[in-house]
Amino acid sequence: ARPRVGYYFNRRSANTLVSRAIAKIRVKDIKSLPVMIRESLSVYDAVVTMFTEDVGSLIVTNEDGYLAGIVSRKDLLKMAIAGGDLQKMPVGMIMTRMPNIITVTQEDTIHIAAQRLLNHQIDALPVVRTYIMPNGDERLEVIGRITKTNIARLFVELGEGGMDHT
Amino acid sequence: ARPRVGYYFNRRSANTLVSRAIAKIRVKDIKSLPVMIRESLSVYDAVVTMFTEDVGSLIVTNEDGYLAGIVSRKDLLKMAIAGGDLQKMPVGMIMTRMPNIITVTQEDTIHIAAQRLLNHQIDALPVVRTYIMPNGDERLEVIGRITKTNIARLFVELGEGGMDHT
Repeated sequence: ARPRVGYYFNRRSANTLVSRAIAKIRVKDIKSLPVMIRESLSVYDAVVTMFTEDVGSLIVTNEDGYLAGIVSRKDLLKMAIAGGDLQKMPVGMIMTRMPNIITVTQEDTIHIAAQRLLNHQIDALPVVRTYIMPNGDERLEVIGRITKTNIARLFVELGEGGMDHT
Repeated sequence: ARPRVGYYFNRRSANTLVSRAIAKIRVKDIKSLPVMIRESLSVYDAVVTMFTEDVGSLIVTNEDGYLAGIVSRKDLLKMAIAGGDLQKMPVGMIMTRMPNIITVTQEDTIHIAAQRLLNHQIDALPVVRTYIMPNGDERLEVIGRITKTNIARLFVELGEGGMDHT
């Protein structure tokens, strides 16, 4: 007869199983669509976009559509409280700019993504694909977004036994 | 000889094990300290507190120290962009006020807490203890705070097999 595995299962192997299940889940499995703006957009319009799209971070692209920067609710609040004419200030002036942006790829695990969010104390990670230009420069195409909301949603799904990645 | 459990383990039972492990983790196991302000504090000083304490939400208490409201980065950004004298406006005027506040208790599971964060689209949950006053009124004492950052941190720990709750 098949053994009833529960009886032979100790705490350590259960832990291992949980971590192994989590290790298999990748960014592409749970990523959201990116919400993007151009760097010429005003800080004021960026705030409006943040409210209409109901996101905590906006990904900023340059004129070619590649990743240029990222701006968070915290960055915008800092500018709003400092005063100044937010309608005249482009978001490119206050965003965190490349190459200082933490990103992930589709194939990275969610475990890695969660570690990056925590270690760098950021709200969102652009999910990118890298292109090497003929001159050797790198360009990052934005194909998604991972936030702590994605992690929390995954956690709830795992808690319901509904995420079929184990 | 002891059976090698891995061989008898199917996808569904692995899923069940993960969800069972998650179901055992409670708010008290991972909660953070609450960051609290009084409702008479100005919106401007609330923003400053949010930056100095580096949190996304502030829990607001009344003069007796009990839970009165909560104010998020989003609420403050909305006020900051609307203009007006933020130094003269008390945070009590713009906060989400009791009884419209979603809370958890120490004994609630983190699964429940994560569901509440997602379902109500909020950033933080006050962890509370309820007192019944002699006149029958309820008062909530704030003893902690749960955010999506706590959930992400727990997720990383589970991924490392380090959370001993299975």
